Amino acid sequence: MTVIRRLQSDSALFQAELTQLLAFEASQDASIENACREILQQIRQRGDAALIEYTHRFDGVQVQHAHELEISHDELQQALAGLPADQRDALETAAQRIRQYHEHQRGQSWTYTEDDGTTLGQKVTPLDRVGLYVPGGKAAYPSSVLMNALPAKVAGVQELIMVTPTPHGERNPLVLAAAALSGVDKVYAIGGAQAVGALAYGTETIAAVDKIVGPGNAYVAEAKRRVFGTVGIDMIAGPSEILIIADGSAPAEWVAMDLFSQAEHDELAQSILLCPSADYLDAVEQAIQDLLPTMPRAEIIKKSLADRGALIKVRNLQEACDIANFIAPEHLEISTVNPENWLEHIRHAGAIFLGHYSSESLGDYCAGPNHVLPTSRTARFSSPLGVYDFQKRSSIIQVSQSGAQSLGPIAATLAKGEGLFAHAASAELRLQDS
Amino acid sequence: MTVIRRLQSDSALFQAELTQLLAFEASQDASIENACREILQQIRQRGDAALIEYTHRFDGVQVQHAHELEISHDELQQALAGLPADQRDALETAAQRIRQYHEHQRGQSWTYTEDDGTTLGQKVTPLDRVGLYVPGGKAAYPSSVLMNALPAKVAGVQELIMVTPTPHGERNPLVLAAAALSGVDKVYAIGGAQAVGALAYGTETIAAVDKIVGPGNAYVAEAKRRVFGTVGIDMIAGPSEILIIADGSAPAEWVAMDLFSQAEHDELAQSILLCPSADYLDAVEQAIQDLLPTMPRAEIIKKSLADRGALIKVRNLQEACDIANFIAPEHLEISTVNPENWLEHIRHAGAIFLGHYSSESLGDYCAGPNHVLPTSRTARFSSPLGVYDFQKRSSIIQVSQSGAQSLGPIAATLAKGEGLFAHAASAELRLQDS
Repeated sequence: MTVIRRLQSDSALFQAELTQLLAFEASQDASIENACREILQQIRQRGDAALIEYTHRFDGVQVQHAHELEISHDELQQALAGLPADQRDALETAAQRIRQYHEHQRGQSWTYTEDDGTTLGQKVTPLDRVGLYVPGGKAAYPSSVLMNALPAKVAGVQELIMVTPTPHGERNPLVLAAAALSGVDKVYAIGGAQAVGALAYGTETIAAVDKIVGPGNAYVAEAKRRVFGTVGIDMIAGPSEILIIADGSAPAEWVAMDLFSQAEHDELAQSILLCPSADYLDAVEQAIQDLLPTMPRAEIIKKSLADRGALIKVRNLQEACDIANFIAPEHLEISTVNPENWLEHIRHAGAIFLGHYSSESLGDYCAGPNHVLPTSRTARFSSPLGVYDFQKRSSIIQVSQSGAQSLGPIAATLAKGEGLFAHAASAELRLQDS
Repeated sequence: MTVIRRLQSDSALFQAELTQLLAFEASQDASIENACREILQQIRQRGDAALIEYTHRFDGVQVQHAHELEISHDELQQALAGLPADQRDALETAAQRIRQYHEHQRGQSWTYTEDDGTTLGQKVTPLDRVGLYVPGGKAAYPSSVLMNALPAKVAGVQELIMVTPTPHGERNPLVLAAAALSGVDKVYAIGGAQAVGALAYGTETIAAVDKIVGPGNAYVAEAKRRVFGTVGIDMIAGPSEILIIADGSAPAEWVAMDLFSQAEHDELAQSILLCPSADYLDAVEQAIQDLLPTMPRAEIIKKSLADRGALIKVRNLQEACDIANFIAPEHLEISTVNPENWLEHIRHAGAIFLGHYSSESLGDYCAGPNHVLPTSRTARFSSPLGVYDFQKRSSIIQVSQSGAQSLGPIAATLAKGEGLFAHAASAELRLQDS
C-alpha cells in the first residue's frame, strides 16, 4: 500500500503534477459572504445587543450585559497558576526567547539632512490598540497566543485585546494561561464574525482596535477581509506546509518525523520532500511506514500524507532550490551538509531551517522566530508575523527656506502638468521673489 | 456666505461634530461585489478570451489577440521624448530624489549567533513580479507612476507590469512617459476588475504577479480586496486629506493655499485647520475668500471646503496634537515656530510636514518621500507606500547540536501539552541520549 505519492522532476508531467499537488483554495462561499455582511452590519448598528444575540445563537453562551463576556484578570492568573510546573517553565522560556528574537525586528526612526538644510526621514510608532483572535476548540494553541501577542508587546502596543469563543461556556485554561503570560490586557469570550465586527467597529463595551490578527475559520477569515480598511488585518492563513530539501545525510527517521510533524496538524496539511537520491527517498518511505503506527495522530497523518504529501526525486539540489522557490513553502528545512551554501538560492519561504538539528518543531515552539508564517505560496509576497506588523511609519518632511527655492519650481511644473494649480501656487508662494 | 465651517473644540458638541465631519465610507455595494466575483471568475477560467471581451465591453477597445493590448517600449520612449523639456527635467529630478529617499528604506538581512552556536535571523528578499494599476482619465497622474514604480525598483523587483485602461483607445502620454522614466518593464492597456484578475491569476499573455499596487475606482478596489491572498495588495485608498496645525506664525495665504491644494483634488477631499487663535482663523477664512476666485479649479475647491472642510479653534497646540492623533490624517502640516517640538506628540499621520516652507505640494511631487499615504484614519495602522512593501522576510533558524539539546525538551513539553506528539518526537529524536 502506498503511504505517500512519489514524483520525479524529470518526468514530462512533473510541472502539472506539482501544480495539482499544491492546488488549494480557501472557499469563497457566497453564503459565508452574505452571513458575514449581515453579522458585521448588525454589530455595527446595534453594538452590544447584536453581539449578545450572536454569542447566544452561535456559542450557546447567554449573558445580560456584554461586560459579562469579559474573562477577568483573576481567571487568567488562576489559569497560569494552575499549569503543571514543567509546562509553565517551558512556556516562560519560550516567551523569553520569542521576545529576545523579536527585539531585533523593532524598527527605528531615521532622518537625514541635505546640504540646504532640508531634513527628510521616517518616524516609527506602535499601533495603539490591537485585537487578537484565538480560535476555540482543537486549533486553540497556547503557543499561538505567545507568537501573536509578544510581537505586539515588543512593538509597544498599549492595549492588546484577545477574543476567543467559548462554546457552551467551555474555556481553554492553556490559552488563558498563555494570555496571562504574554501580557494580554483584556480577554473577551466571543468569537466568529461577530467578534471581528466588535473589534473593528467597537461596541458600547468593547473598544475599537486598529488591527486584528490571529487565525480563524472561514467566517472569521471572510469577516477580516471585509473589515480590512477600517482596521488592519494580518494574512488569511491556509493549511500548514513543510518542504524538506535533503541530500540524504540525515537519518531517514528524522526526516520522516519532520514530515509527520506537519501532517499531524490536520488532513489538509502538506508535507513534501525533495531529494536527488531515490535510495534515500526509499529509506524515508520505509521510515514513514515503520513510524506511522507509533503515532497517536496516525489517522490524520496517514490521510494528510496520502492526499497532499509527496516524495520527489529531483535532478540535483540546485533544482530542489528552484522548486522550493516555486512552492514558496511556509516551512523549508534544508537537511544537507553545509546547508548555508543553499540559503542564497532560496528566495521565497516563510521560515528556513538549516541543518539536521533545526527541526521545524523547535521553531514552532521556542527557537525564537515567529511560527505565524505565510502559507499557500504567499511567502512570495509576505512575511512571518513580526514586530513590523504592529508598528507603522510616518514620513517626515522639513523643507528649509533654501530647499523650498529649488524644489518649488519643480513641484510647480509637475503640478501644472497635472492640472493642479493650487498645488503649483502653494509651492510658488514660498519662492522668495514671489 | 460661509465658505467653510467653523468649529470650536470647547463646544460640548465638538466630538460629535468632528466624528460626523470625518465620516466617510467607501461604498460596499452588493452589485459591485457580484460584478467583480463574476469578472474575476471569468478571467481565471478563460484567461485572455475573457480579458479581450471585457476590454471590448468596458473600454471600447477591440483586439483579436491579447498581446495587441501591450503598449510597446517604443511607444513609451516616444512619449518620454515628446515631453516638454521643463516637464522632463522636473520628472527626472523628482525621480532622482524619490529614489534617493527610498534607498534609506531598503531592509537588510540580519543574523545573530547564541553562545551554543545556534544562529537566528531574518533574510530580506524582493518580490519577483509586481503589478501596478494606473487609473485612466482624470485621476491618472504621472507623479503617481513614479511614486508606485520607484520603490518597487529600489527594492529590487525584477519585473514591474503596469496596467492602465485606455477608454476608446485614448492613451495618456504623460503616464506613459513616467512609466518609461521609472523603468516599468511592461505596460498593458487594460483596466477594471478584469485587469486586476489578469495580474492576480495570469492569463496566456499576462504573467501572474505577486502583488498589485496602485489606486483605482470602486471595482478595482473590490477586485483587489477579493484577490488578496492569491497576491498581496496595498491599501484601499479613500479621498485625500490634509490637516494643518497652525500657531498663526505663517502668512494666512500660505495656509489657505495649502488647504486649497488638498481641496482641488476632488469634492470629497478634506481640508481641516486647527489653531488656538480665532483671529488667525478669521484671517485664513478671509484669505480663502480672496484667493478662491483666482483658482482654475474653484468649483471643486468650493464644494470640497463647504462639504468636508473645517476651521477649528482649539484650546492650545497640545490639544491640536491630540485631535490630530484622533484624525490620523494622510497629510499633517505643523505650521508653527519650532515645529519639531510638536513632532514627538504626533503618533498617527501618513506624512508630517514641519515648518512654513514644507508645503504638502513639495511632498506630493519631489521632496522624496512617497505621496501614496494612508487615508481615512488608516494611518493608525498603516504606512506610506515604501520599499518595505516590495520586500519580504524569511526567518532563519540554524540550531546547533548543543542548542537542540536545550530547546528539544522545551518544545517537546509544549507540543505534548497541545497534543502534537510528532512535534514532540521530532524534537526528541535530536536529543543525544535518545
